[in-house]
Amino acid sequence: MSRDVRRAAPHVVRLGLLGLGNVGTAFAALVDNDREGIARRVGLKLEITRIAVHDTGKPRGVLARQERITEDASAVVADPSIDVVVELIGGIEPAKSLILAALRAGKPVVTANKELLAQEGPELFATAESAGRALLFEAAVAGAIPLVRALRVSLVGEHIRRILGIVNGTTNYILTEMSEKGLSYAAALGAAQSLGYAERDPAADVGGHDAAAKAAILAGLAFSADVVAGDVYREGIEAIETADIEFAHRLGYEVKLLAVAEQLDGADDGPPLVAVRVHPAMIPADHPLATIRGPFNAVFIEGDSVGELMLFGRGAGGRPTASAVLGDVIDAAGACELEGGLRFSPRHRAQIRPIGELRAQYYVAIDVIDRPGVLATVATTFGQHNVSVRSMEQVGLGDQARLVFITHLVLESDVQATLGALARLDVVRRVGGLIRVVGQER
Amino acid sequence: MSRDVRRAAPHVVRLGLLGLGNVGTAFAALVDNDREGIARRVGLKLEITRIAVHDTGKPRGVLARQERITEDASAVVADPSIDVVVELIGGIEPAKSLILAALRAGKPVVTANKELLAQEGPELFATAESAGRALLFEAAVAGAIPLVRALRVSLVGEHIRRILGIVNGTTNYILTEMSEKGLSYAAALGAAQSLGYAERDPAADVGGHDAAAKAAILAGLAFSADVVAGDVYREGIEAIETADIEFAHRLGYEVKLLAVAEQLDGADDGPPLVAVRVHPAMIPADHPLATIRGPFNAVFIEGDSVGELMLFGRGAGGRPTASAVLGDVIDAAGACELEGGLRFSPRHRAQIRPIGELRAQYYVAIDVIDRPGVLATVATTFGQHNVSVRSMEQVGLGDQARLVFITHLVLESDVQATLGALARLDVVRRVGGLIRVVGQER
Repeated sequence: MSRDVRRAAPHVVRLGLLGLGNVGTAFAALVDNDREGIARRVGLKLEITRIAVHDTGKPRGVLARQERITEDASAVVADPSIDVVVELIGGIEPAKSLILAALRAGKPVVTANKELLAQEGPELFATAESAGRALLFEAAVAGAIPLVRALRVSLVGEHIRRILGIVNGTTNYILTEMSEKGLSYAAALGAAQSLGYAERDPAADVGGHDAAAKAAILAGLAFSADVVAGDVYREGIEAIETADIEFAHRLGYEVKLLAVAEQLDGADDGPPLVAVRVHPAMIPADHPLATIRGPFNAVFIEGDSVGELMLFGRGAGGRPTASAVLGDVIDAAGACELEGGLRFSPRHRAQIRPIGELRAQYYVAIDVIDRPGVLATVATTFGQHNVSVRSMEQVGLGDQARLVFITHLVLESDVQATLGALARLDVVRRVGGLIRVVGQER
Repeated sequence: MSRDVRRAAPHVVRLGLLGLGNVGTAFAALVDNDREGIARRVGLKLEITRIAVHDTGKPRGVLARQERITEDASAVVADPSIDVVVELIGGIEPAKSLILAALRAGKPVVTANKELLAQEGPELFATAESAGRALLFEAAVAGAIPLVRALRVSLVGEHIRRILGIVNGTTNYILTEMSEKGLSYAAALGAAQSLGYAERDPAADVGGHDAAAKAAILAGLAFSADVVAGDVYREGIEAIETADIEFAHRLGYEVKLLAVAEQLDGADDGPPLVAVRVHPAMIPADHPLATIRGPFNAVFIEGDSVGELMLFGRGAGGRPTASAVLGDVIDAAGACELEGGLRFSPRHRAQIRPIGELRAQYYVAIDVIDRPGVLATVATTFGQHNVSVRSMEQVGLGDQARLVFITHLVLESDVQATLGALARLDVVRRVGGLIRVVGQER
């Protein structure tokens, strides 16, 4: 991929995908199904040219109907027509050898492999650096949360003091169930397993191993130094009892499995002194991390200049993780198009739909003279303008009254017409407090 | 800056700074004071070579003692020794002409100028694209929150349906005061003014103009299309009454000034159809945005694949904004060092401090035989190991009892020694539930 070729838009970028498990399948579907949308948004036409799987005999629906599937992952990596390699096999080998081979063959690599990065990161990054190729891994920590790039680029100048992360959704789901429903650990684990949030053998999650790998990666990013999984002190949640959580509540705490990465002194020369650990922690109930429920992930960053930041979202799952992989693929394919990795080059003016044509629910407060028949008059006005009312309440104010309405989902222009008509009524003293209801649909 | 020169590390990057107001001063101090730390973390030596100000006669402390200050901003932009131009003047002119001149002179530009981007963005981005230079603006929306790069790169492949943002700290502070203390709008505005959260003339904030500029930028990023401030429907918070907020609470809502950017259909060809607006909104009390208090900002993103994401942090203030500017400067100076903008190249192994040498507060639960003298025995054991106890509670369990302790800030190795000694006591049936307290210091 030379610079001039990449500037032509929409330029075709050929991807070699290694692994077609949960994330790989979601990624392939995302790229196959949204090819035109992606091309419109970023000017690159992504094409999954080859897919390496363990067993081509396994039924794989629409993805398998194509001749791109092979069992020879090395051939995919070596294929000169492949621009970017996407490693979604997981585990140490053969993922490590394949990534190293891809980098040495001059291909940027995108991976979601936290275990590998936490164990072999220093060798992989050194190889990427000497090969002059990118090794991107947004999906390896906290799934869809755009955390890795935030630490790697946006906050790279920041002196980060500490990161506190809820980076394992399984354990957060279990602890949430214990906290909110008073379930025992065993019962909450069973619930997590029946929902697919926990594996049949849950040791990697409940023992804190998964979180420890992510903690190592986070610490390395935050403190610009190599940190590996073996550096991380680790305790799981297996010993947490419902009674501990009840006591924590009484004292104003919530119990969470936290990844904690701290920089212990500000020495500017020599390696930073850090402490990295994963263990159950009691955090104050008013801390933003205490509000993170169920399978969600969140990372709380404390820096000298930025103060406190938090990013939260889905930490796992095929589609959210695939979205993070896709962002990296596009970055790897096109980042050097312009100096500074310019990305913001919209090719068209948005079409704007005016507010009058939008639908919402509305809160409307009207001050009226408190006498018989007023409500009927007001209600009739709403009806005449096609504004249906979900709830109404009257609040007395001496000889006046305030009528407070919440509408159903209605057209803004109809609401505005209603307000205009209401303002012209003799019995209405004041029309005020129009507030749109947002976020109701969650 | 040719590619080979930039690869040498630590490479000196010369910055031309335009504007020395609140953010400019914080940025200059950050770069001047952390030069070595930044060089260690990113391999670039940042040097503010020239600073353009409106009036060189104004006293400016340590920054002014240097010969780098000038009133001739055009000369700074044209100076061939300047690698990156940082525009922190604000407003439309002369900022616009200076940015255009810098881009045309082949210099990447970093700006925090939301007003300019929202009004003249299309021309600025077109100029950046034709000049082949980056125009970065992480600091223009939501201050220190690494939102712009998340939308611009990490989520660039994502089909974003909607963004809900609390992007103006002044109005969020006012609404929080009204909501939590029952203050009138006027009283809450006065409080915000006395704390410096609101200007003497608060119109840009309370009228929603500031939020509307940010909404336009966000919509453009999210939907890959040009959106300008004039496209944004806008209402401020001036008409919100305490009674409205009380009624919202009764119905289970919180009132926030929201920026809402929606993509209304998924057409992949032609310009996206979008709606962008800023207005007070009632959001359900259990929505993550409802918990954002005081001057904080937060942005909630809804995408087809990522599901729900939220980023929150400080949206304004000199140092947080300066940190976002710094990240952009480093990105602009070094992003194309390697294909894909490789950033993760730690030069050393972190020093790891073992868990035993860390200090924390600890929750410890011990099951003991319930007979006289047991507490004294247990308490003595804590004391012998230098573990001072902040609180203790006894929970009866038949002939047994559970003693639950919270310690003061003590050394982990002392706590572990205490637990070992406790386990050896005849009266102790079980030592369990060691949980570290984290986040207490906020």
